[in-house]
Amino acid sequence: MTSLIQPKRGFDNAEFEKRFAVVQSKMREQQLAAILLTTEHDINYYTGYLTQFWQSPTRPWYLVLPSEGLPIAVIPTIGVECMSKGWMTDIRNWSSPHPTDDGISLLTEALVESVERAKAASGFTNIGISSGREAHMRMPLCDLEQLKVNLSNHDKQVEFVDATVIMRRQRMVKSPNEIEKLRYVAQTVSSVFERLFEFVHPGMTDAEVFRAFKIQCLTEGVDDVAFLVGGADQGGYSDIISPAGPRKIGEGDVLILDTGCTFDGYYCDFDRNYGFGKVDQSAHDAYEAVWEATEQGFLAAKPGNTPADLFHAMNDVLQKAGALGDSVGRYGHGLGLQLTEPPSNTRWDDEVFEVGTVMTLEPGMEFAPGKLMVHEENIVITENGAEYLSRRALPKMPIYS
Amino acid sequence: MTSLIQPKRGFDNAEFEKRFAVVQSKMREQQLAAILLTTEHDINYYTGYLTQFWQSPTRPWYLVLPSEGLPIAVIPTIGVECMSKGWMTDIRNWSSPHPTDDGISLLTEALVESVERAKAASGFTNIGISSGREAHMRMPLCDLEQLKVNLSNHDKQVEFVDATVIMRRQRMVKSPNEIEKLRYVAQTVSSVFERLFEFVHPGMTDAEVFRAFKIQCLTEGVDDVAFLVGGADQGGYSDIISPAGPRKIGEGDVLILDTGCTFDGYYCDFDRNYGFGKVDQSAHDAYEAVWEATEQGFLAAKPGNTPADLFHAMNDVLQKAGALGDSVGRYGHGLGLQLTEPPSNTRWDDEVFEVGTVMTLEPGMEFAPGKLMVHEENIVITENGAEYLSRRALPKMPIYS
Repeated sequence: MTSLIQPKRGFDNAEFEKRFAVVQSKMREQQLAAILLTTEHDINYYTGYLTQFWQSPTRPWYLVLPSEGLPIAVIPTIGVECMSKGWMTDIRNWSSPHPTDDGISLLTEALVESVERAKAASGFTNIGISSGREAHMRMPLCDLEQLKVNLSNHDKQVEFVDATVIMRRQRMVKSPNEIEKLRYVAQTVSSVFERLFEFVHPGMTDAEVFRAFKIQCLTEGVDDVAFLVGGADQGGYSDIISPAGPRKIGEGDVLILDTGCTFDGYYCDFDRNYGFGKVDQSAHDAYEAVWEATEQGFLAAKPGNTPADLFHAMNDVLQKAGALGDSVGRYGHGLGLQLTEPPSNTRWDDEVFEVGTVMTLEPGMEFAPGKLMVHEENIVITENGAEYLSRRALPKMPIYS
Repeated sequence: MTSLIQPKRGFDNAEFEKRFAVVQSKMREQQLAAILLTTEHDINYYTGYLTQFWQSPTRPWYLVLPSEGLPIAVIPTIGVECMSKGWMTDIRNWSSPHPTDDGISLLTEALVESVERAKAASGFTNIGISSGREAHMRMPLCDLEQLKVNLSNHDKQVEFVDATVIMRRQRMVKSPNEIEKLRYVAQTVSSVFERLFEFVHPGMTDAEVFRAFKIQCLTEGVDDVAFLVGGADQGGYSDIISPAGPRKIGEGDVLILDTGCTFDGYYCDFDRNYGFGKVDQSAHDAYEAVWEATEQGFLAAKPGNTPADLFHAMNDVLQKAGALGDSVGRYGHGLGLQLTEPPSNTRWDDEVFEVGTVMTLEPGMEFAPGKLMVHEENIVITENGAEYLSRRALPKMPIYS
């Protein structure tokens, strides 16, 4: 068992007040009257409303962040008790599901109030929504259309505009309390990975390996094993996102496990590779190449640099190692309340890292036709460069023998 | 350990061919050229593409169901290997994330092809999307707007129309193979619930109870404990969706656990209530009331009846038992690839049950101010009425003593 100290759950009101002050100042910069949020992680970030109930797709949930005044939640009655435990005070609710008005009248009222206050204070009437890249609106499109009609009937000047970048940029930079949770879950899972050969043996099926791994992670202290993909194959694998199957691990196999476990809503996301018996030399070479690529990505991870810098640092190593291609599309990404968050370590992502940015480094390559090797670690960017949140993988592939 | 036989994973191609034939006939009835799908469960239903990779929100995934010809997947390259293992043959891909064209050109082409074929065969040009109640589109709104422009530039007659009801109605009726998976996971979890006092004891915190329960479910054979909510409190609980906290179970407590475990992508969703020592009589009475309400809901569950019939059958019992109200908003719902699916057991839902409809019965009541009692079972509707998929809860609250 690990001797890690579990961080306190939740956050003090001061943290939410600060988050809200930051987004309010951004709203004013961008001349927005309010922002309307609909997704689990955006709403959790600003309210502390953490629940697995989001898995039920039936009910919409709304949060209005006004540029003047306090946030307004417009949510189904079933969530009021849970949300009231946090810092939110203005929680309006209706019995959902509803046949004709699933929260839209209440939401219209909340937005009209917010726009009226903003108009009086600053003249702003636009409402920001998440309509940009890598985002979606978790509400029925028919209700979004109805909302537009309602608001336009109230005031022709009200328009929806894209505000995706505001939330993306704010959430990219983590607070010390967030980093503590991220470090805890990454360290906990590191311990499980380091002891893998204690509970995984040749002859087990991929499905048995997954089950054993999940039980170990729960036993060691994660809240949930929300994401686990991978599998084993001869001398390397070809698919890293399929569910576990009935194939048994045998001599010459390479096993990858890539997991997103959570603590208090915060994710780790990293992988480990393992060999069984005599593994083809090309897989050993590929392991060392992706490990070295991670080293170089780590060195490039500092304030002022960009995901594109990380991409090039890692890609140089992989190209020299003879990479045939890459089907993943990027070499890592942001990490936090979601398994993957913006930005992406691609050739083109020029988001600027700040102190507190949390990223994964995930160099991957096809090292022989149909054979992949993917490695991943979690880091946080500090004033002096990067620090690992996960405990670094071994520089050579661990072998079960 | 249970002696249940684990069903085969996946489905034969014949099952997907049948699902596609059904939706094609509905498209022709409703004069649609094609349907565009964007969400995990709709795409899984028609393609067999089962992966946890959906937890990464970065990449969009598209499936075009044409009224003439075969389905076309338009997906990120990272998913091609996994999707190719199933029945899909036309899989088009791009390296995602992409800075300027995250699949929209490819998707435009696929839709244009589908519309052209439909136009030639039937004259239809409309494209169905999920823009209705309880649905959302999992794609950036800016990309949906771009797609509309692209299609309109190609042919002014092309319009998006709501087709939510087609998928909702089709997915509501489960095949024998789907029911077998649903029964397996519900029976497996029933066993865990029946042995709860073997691994849950007074003095454990809610968080410890959750952890122990998850490990037991995994050990018994579920793939994932995707959803677990609940907790304990004196003489009844007030909140059924918060995460587990540090409170310790003690004398006089009532504990509820409500779980959605999965097998091969299919969910159970039911709960159990337990008492510890001497529990207030009002909680015993409420337990028996919700248990009896479930009996009455079960008797009303037959082909030709509606969720509203179930609502009234259950509500009559709860009203007689002195229910003060209900914050859940319904007494159960559909169940399958999602924890909750349409329809909803409400006063107003008049969807007609068919043989193969799978539902939860979930009567809940506030039996004293701030004290809830919620019960839930899973059923399938057969020619002769309903059958339980979960093993029926005990008619009196089980007490740890």
